[in-house]
Amino acid sequence: MTLAPERAAQSGSTTDDANPAVSLSCRHCGATYPLGPQHVCFECFAPLEIAYDEDRLRRVTRASIEAGPQNLWRYVGLLPAGHDPARRVSLGAGFTPLRPAPRLAAELGMKTLWVKDDSANPTHSFKDRVVSVALSAARDLGFTTVACASTGNLAHSVAAHAAHTGLRSIVLVPHDLEDGKTVSTAVYGGTLVAIKGNYDDVNKLCSQLADEYEWAFVNVNVRPFYAEGSKTLGYEVAEQLGWRLPAQVVIPIASGSLLTKVDKAFRELGKLGLVEPTPYKVFGAQAAGCNPVAAAFERGVDTVSPVRPSTIAKSLSIGNPADGPYALDVARRTGGAITDVTDDEIIEGMRLLARTEGIFGETAGGVTVANLRRQLREGLLDPDAETVIYNTGDGLKTLDPLVGIAGPTATIPPTLSAFEAAGLGDD
Amino acid sequence: MTLAPERAAQSGSTTDDANPAVSLSCRHCGATYPLGPQHVCFECFAPLEIAYDEDRLRRVTRASIEAGPQNLWRYVGLLPAGHDPARRVSLGAGFTPLRPAPRLAAELGMKTLWVKDDSANPTHSFKDRVVSVALSAARDLGFTTVACASTGNLAHSVAAHAAHTGLRSIVLVPHDLEDGKTVSTAVYGGTLVAIKGNYDDVNKLCSQLADEYEWAFVNVNVRPFYAEGSKTLGYEVAEQLGWRLPAQVVIPIASGSLLTKVDKAFRELGKLGLVEPTPYKVFGAQAAGCNPVAAAFERGVDTVSPVRPSTIAKSLSIGNPADGPYALDVARRTGGAITDVTDDEIIEGMRLLARTEGIFGETAGGVTVANLRRQLREGLLDPDAETVIYNTGDGLKTLDPLVGIAGPTATIPPTLSAFEAAGLGDD
Ligand SMILES: Cc1ncc(COP(=O)(O)O)c(C=O)c1O
Ligand SMILES: Cc1ncc(COP(=O)(O)O)c(C=O)c1O
Ligand SMILES: [Zn+2]
Ligand SMILES: [Zn+2]
Repeated sequence: MTLAPERAAQSGSTTDDANPAVSLSCRHCGATYPLGPQHVCFECFAPLEIAYDEDRLRRVTRASIEAGPQNLWRYVGLLPAGHDPARRVSLGAGFTPLRPAPRLAAELGMKTLWVKDDSANPTHSFKDRVVSVALSAARDLGFTTVACASTGNLAHSVAAHAAHTGLRSIVLVPHDLEDGKTVSTAVYGGTLVAIKGNYDDVNKLCSQLADEYEWAFVNVNVRPFYAEGSKTLGYEVAEQLGWRLPAQVVIPIASGSLLTKVDKAFRELGKLGLVEPTPYKVFGAQAAGCNPVAAAFERGVDTVSPVRPSTIAKSLSIGNPADGPYALDVARRTGGAITDVTDDEIIEGMRLLARTEGIFGETAGGVTVANLRRQLREGLLDPDAETVIYNTGDGLKTLDPLVGIAGPTATIPPTLSAFEAAGLGDD
Repeated sequence: MTLAPERAAQSGSTTDDANPAVSLSCRHCGATYPLGPQHVCFECFAPLEIAYDEDRLRRVTRASIEAGPQNLWRYVGLLPAGHDPARRVSLGAGFTPLRPAPRLAAELGMKTLWVKDDSANPTHSFKDRVVSVALSAARDLGFTTVACASTGNLAHSVAAHAAHTGLRSIVLVPHDLEDGKTVSTAVYGGTLVAIKGNYDDVNKLCSQLADEYEWAFVNVNVRPFYAEGSKTLGYEVAEQLGWRLPAQVVIPIASGSLLTKVDKAFRELGKLGLVEPTPYKVFGAQAAGCNPVAAAFERGVDTVSPVRPSTIAKSLSIGNPADGPYALDVARRTGGAITDVTDDEIIEGMRLLARTEGIFGETAGGVTVANLRRQLREGLLDPDAETVIYNTGDGLKTLDPLVGIAGPTATIPPTLSAFEAAGLGDD
């Protein structure tokens, strides 16, 4: 793929002095490439990630962050895009609440538990973070069309941010998503393509399309930029705890990118002296119906064998996760674990979080809460150590599995006597 | 109804020095009553509202507000509850984005347009504001059970805040609500009662129940407290504009409370010297299928005749709006107008807002945008005067009317050739 002339010109500006990112580097062989729309190493085909100039990163201080906006762009000095405000894409994602969860902690026998509640983002999932960074990078690189493969949340977010910014969007999803996810993507008026296949089929098609068209595929050719957006879920937790790291975190896994980036964020903060580099354990959460990383962890192997997903947690239904091996590394290195739970447990997890804390998370949130419970039960996670769990999406996005389960206590005519006859009054 | 002993004792604390509210006063005859669970005047049966001590209100400054939390409690000095942090109920509602809307403005031929985006609240509607204040008041008054009649959003919000706080909740809704609203209320584990009837039937039953049980009905016996929560939608817009009032606002109407309270907030800010008391016009927005206030405005009469609602805008389906006459007064006094739009126009309004600004509002948001368009077309609203429209709820809450309308552009097998055959590539 060749760059259009204006693309080549503009892409130079991503290496300006404000931007701490300086190159793409191979996670396997260390080869480096200039910043651009590329995601695999030409030498060894391993994934690329953003490399930073350490001196530039060191310009960032607690004070400079705290003086920034109340959204993820307060961390722009640690990100590879968004440095020119004119090309920054933002609906205000990030800096979501870190909620104390005393009632859930009590029910689980834990001491200090927090919920990082990313359902508060503009399109109500953490994907708004990666999309803000990916679309800003796409504009830095001169693209005017953005595209993605999605299990639903990314679709919604890309369509919304593209509409907001006046970019053309082309979004590809599996044909069997929840109504909440297709309607809430299509409403923005971009192109939405339903693919007769699962996410892994959609993803494969996107890789082919990325070779054909000059579009920024947020999770293909601009994936190195995109993935860095998830670091902000690590930065924020540390800042919101008063610039320190939690002892344990529980994070849902689809491709595995989010989990690895929270770990990367914690390490960066320690290295830059923004927090004490205290030890922490990273726990991963999957659904039993799509558990390739949990299965590899359980078996103690390094390779992640693909599975065919079948679970209500559709947003986590990636059977062949690109960052699975890296997620395994993180859990093992930090002393965490990666486990899975059944669909029934997922629903129970959603209801438990709602009932105790008033937070209605999506199925992915149920996956996280249910795995927290399992990890406690199996003694993997310490109930007395401070723990942060990530609620990465909103329950309104995945109502389907609850229809017929969470419904009215009673249906009655509008009379006092009917109310009393139904046993609804005080004893 | 007699107060339980602990109730009587605790209720005294709502008149402590921190609380600027001092009594309930009749909006019609001016009779006053002590702060308590009462909403109509014993003399003339007109609705009561909170009366404040002006000296206490004057303690509030721009600086004291700006030093407060990033939620509605920054205005606690202008509110009748939440003064004792131990009884304050909060999921962090309020201080939602005031978004510039240049692309929507351009499409409508307007100069300066803002969207106050209350879909960003914890349960994604403005009802989180009134519920935060009502439940805090309920605790001040010694209640441990909270209840409400709802067209859906209030239900969701009451259930969530009650779960968060450990209060018992009893929520009554019409039986024909969207799944999004029953599931997302029931999931919190409180009591949800579906009533075979419309909202006005549900409301009538709640009034009867309020006489029977010692429960705080957020929109019945504690309605004076509840309603004050909507003032924060006026305060925030003024603060976010840099402490000044907009020239025009467009606000959706169900009971009419929100519209009257935004006006009250603007007048208070002027009187307290927190903004210049510049003139502003208040516009109301209804659906043609439930337009009692718009119809009275159109006919130039003072009385609001009840209607039987039939519209996709279920959250606005109150046929007999308690504050309808007061909303009429506000629109007429300020030089605004109250209009209505068809269901097709509502859907068009939802899509227009999504397509231009990346904001997916619920049907109520569609009602507002479509009425804005109508008011511009009819020369009621000045396209050159600075305008704020209120998006009061999230599109994820009302997907039903869009199913089959906003869907995939194409459904194809996962191949490059199918993609091209469907005409999805670049020319
Ligand atoms: C709600 C939600 N949580 C978590 C994830 C996991 O993200 P990752 O692919 O980075 O592992 C996803 C991915 O789609 C998601 O939608
Ligand atoms: C989304 C939404 N907007 C606006 C309103 C109108 O509120 P009010 O009853 O104060 O007029 C409601 C009321 O339920 C609502 O749910
Ligand atoms: Zn390599
Ligand atoms: Zn009276």
